Amino acid sequence: MKSDQKFSHLDATGTARMVNVGAKPVQRRRATAAAILVCQPSTIRALKRNALPKGDVLTVAQIAGIQAAKRTADLIPLCHPLALCHVAVSFQVKRDQVLVECVAETTAQTGVEMEALTGASVAALTLYDMCKAVDKTMRVEGVRVLAKVKE
Amino acid sequence: MKSDQKFSHLDATGTARMVNVGAKPVQRRRATAAAILVCQPSTIRALKRNALPKGDVLTVAQIAGIQAAKRTADLIPLCHPLALCHVAVSFQVKRDQVLVECVAETTAQTGVEMEALTGASVAALTLYDMCKAVDKTMRVEGVRVLAKVKE
Amino acid sequence: MKSDQKFSHLDATGTARMVNVGAKPVQRRRATAAAILVCQPSTIRALKRNALPKGDVLTVAQIAGIQAAKRTADLIPLCHPLALCHVAVSFQVKRDQVLVECVAETTAQTGVEMEALTGASVAALTLYDMCKAVDKTMRVEGVRVLAKVKE
Amino acid sequence: MKSDQKFSHLDATGTARMVNVGAKPVQRRRATAAAILVCQPSTIRALKRNALPKGDVLTVAQIAGIQAAKRTADLIPLCHPLALCHVAVSFQVKRDQVLVECVAETTAQTGVEMEALTGASVAALTLYDMCKAVDKTMRVEGVRVLAKVKE
Amino acid sequence: MKSDQKFSHLDATGTARMVNVGAKPVQRRRATAAAILVCQPSTIRALKRNALPKGDVLTVAQIAGIQAAKRTADLIPLCHPLALCHVAVSFQVKRDQVLVECVAETTAQTGVEMEALTGASVAALTLYDMCKAVDKTMRVEGVRVLAKVKE
Amino acid sequence: MKSDQKFSHLDATGTARMVNVGAKPVQRRRATAAAILVCQPSTIRALKRNALPKGDVLTVAQIAGIQAAKRTADLIPLCHPLALCHVAVSFQVKRDQVLVECVAETTAQTGVEMEALTGASVAALTLYDMCKAVDKTMRVEGVRVLAKVKE
Repeated sequence: MKSDQKFSHLDATGTARMVNVGAKPVQRRRATAAAILVCQPSTIRALKRNALPKGDVLTVAQIAGIQAAKRTADLIPLCHPLALCHVAVSFQVKRDQVLVECVAETTAQTGVEMEALTGASVAALTLYDMCKAVDKTMRVEGVRVLAKVKE
Repeated sequence: MKSDQKFSHLDATGTARMVNVGAKPVQRRRATAAAILVCQPSTIRALKRNALPKGDVLTVAQIAGIQAAKRTADLIPLCHPLALCHVAVSFQVKRDQVLVECVAETTAQTGVEMEALTGASVAALTLYDMCKAVDKTMRVEGVRVLAKVKE
Repeated sequence: MKSDQKFSHLDATGTARMVNVGAKPVQRRRATAAAILVCQPSTIRALKRNALPKGDVLTVAQIAGIQAAKRTADLIPLCHPLALCHVAVSFQVKRDQVLVECVAETTAQTGVEMEALTGASVAALTLYDMCKAVDKTMRVEGVRVLAKVKE
Repeated sequence: MKSDQKFSHLDATGTARMVNVGAKPVQRRRATAAAILVCQPSTIRALKRNALPKGDVLTVAQIAGIQAAKRTADLIPLCHPLALCHVAVSFQVKRDQVLVECVAETTAQTGVEMEALTGASVAALTLYDMCKAVDKTMRVEGVRVLAKVKE
Repeated sequence: MKSDQKFSHLDATGTARMVNVGAKPVQRRRATAAAILVCQPSTIRALKRNALPKGDVLTVAQIAGIQAAKRTADLIPLCHPLALCHVAVSFQVKRDQVLVECVAETTAQTGVEMEALTGASVAALTLYDMCKAVDKTMRVEGVRVLAKVKE
Repeated sequence: MKSDQKFSHLDATGTARMVNVGAKPVQRRRATAAAILVCQPSTIRALKRNALPKGDVLTVAQIAGIQAAKRTADLIPLCHPLALCHVAVSFQVKRDQVLVECVAETTAQTGVEMEALTGASVAALTLYDMCKAVDKTMRVEGVRVLAKVKE
């Protein structure tokens, strides 16, 4: 059946496998992913009072996201190791949430959406870690791909 | 202000820091976290036809989650390295989502909620990776702590 | 002496070194390696009864082998970091042994036999780990390269 | 059936799992494992002429084995992270083989045989890597536990 | 000779080895180390104008130092893996240098001076990385232990 | 101001970032860095008596330096992952110091000075680790780039 053949990570017997990308063209590829740390408005206010002027909390999360994106093939078993030429993590602080966005780029035989998703997720979890002492209600929502392009 | 002092990961100047847990008691600690991979019902149906009888896809995600939980201190900058005595990752396959649950345990001076959250997140991202060829609408939602106990 | 010059990993004074592959052509390269987990026939029978219908044990070992192959340059000091385009680990369950085979591929300036050997070894050790509670006589034998090609 | 219950790494449904060692006593534990690099006698003679007086080749393999033993929980998915208090790797150079022995020790809730096996295997593979330019017939044999004690 | 016996990392034949700390008492231990990034006064002035108000550059270096300290046993072959209960990295920006200080703490059978030295070194190298586009004369000096205590 | 624009690792708001090297040409690049372990003359004499004839101590430091150079992007947050085609670490033993030199090479879109600096630093710290039992006065000095070329 047609739709069944689409599971590139499963062979005919349903066994998981790493896709062989050796025959694919080397192309410049970019993916953007997002994650949202949802928290109490009071957590955002406290963060702004204590930490955000200095930016420190966001910088820690940014670095964690960049490092995690570079380590994606170590975390996601069927991902290929890739030499990323760029990773960027940015934040928008809202009333009761922090939006995290991660862009990853490479020139390679396969895409980088898992790198962008991993970077956004770990950046959001790092924010969670730093705020968990003041807010027991936080959760990470909306981890998804926003855009994916190749040239 | 009282609530401001609760940011254990920020010092008086707003600088991020690793908490010194050296004076805390060594206790048995357990945390459970969840993550939800939300997808098309057709993705779940295709998964069931191709992969789930054999369980392979879930096993790959389970192993990825366990490995990520063990590596949490490498991913989340202000987390302490911990000798986990147990990590378990389990799944419930629903009509249009897969619920992921991760339990982490240690006997240590600090809790393991970040380990449980990291394990659940990476297991969900691994499912995403294996299904992304058939479903462009997936997202990870509801990454949160379900329970946290110490004895 | 001619044969002495063949130790590419030793300089004239006998000092170990990483070979400089910078002047070698970038070529598609593939290597296949094997390892054999030798065990009691009763272990194989018990595995078949408990675990093999579901394939879980083999999937765990497969993922461990793939992850280890990707991490070869981290484990074998004089290996070059390589962007593998493919790794596959497969198994044949015999009467008193499990044959493990690992294929690694890259497009690079150096071969991937160490990646294939590392993947096969770690997959076999992972099987050992999961069966060690029922069989104290196991050993890994026959870790070797089966084939090595470049195009 | 009794023997079936011994697969500590499989639950009742055949699903692989990490054993929960949280209730086990903390004990001093030591394990010794071996691996044999089997090669041509001419390879051993060439090694002795070029490299062994200086010991360099064996030192590289020793360090690789120690580092791999410390990283066992990162390689073998269901292993627990352990704070090893000692790892030693030693060699006996024979006519057509090198015997590798690895001892690992910890004070923990679980044993270290996988650490010893991993250290011996990676040390042998590192020797393989350094000799592969002169000998295409090598293989690693006899990877096994020699002794396991707890106090 | 007496002083010769002090090389705890060398056995009687001069072979390097990991010290067996299994018989040592578990004690609370702390070490402080320093490193100095020496640069042009104009680099410090440019840093202050562009980056230091926000603190970002120092935060990136702080996180890199903390992460490296946690990974010391992975970097320094004969170091023991340790569960650090605290790591802190701080900076003093002078006219033509940045002083880096790293404190590491554990409750373990062996000291943490290598963790403190590794954290200080990698934090200084991270500053170097971020400033290398504007200053080709930088160097890291004075990497040393400032204090080492156990209780 | 012109000099301000030179901080390639800072954006207009002073936020740290990974440089996007995706548009740079792929070139062969090589960098050489040094580090000096300064110690007591008696430490050098004792080393020569016990360890240096065999070279073991230097080999351990060499391997640590090579492994660290390969892992640079994991240690220095804003560095790009690179497939190094060569790393070499060498030593000159003087009366009261050991000079460490590390050469790194790649064919990539960005330079390798951080890889060379990381390799030299970790090799020097590894020597420090092995000698710290006999010499409490050691320090690492002069960590710097000696040469950087691209073709």
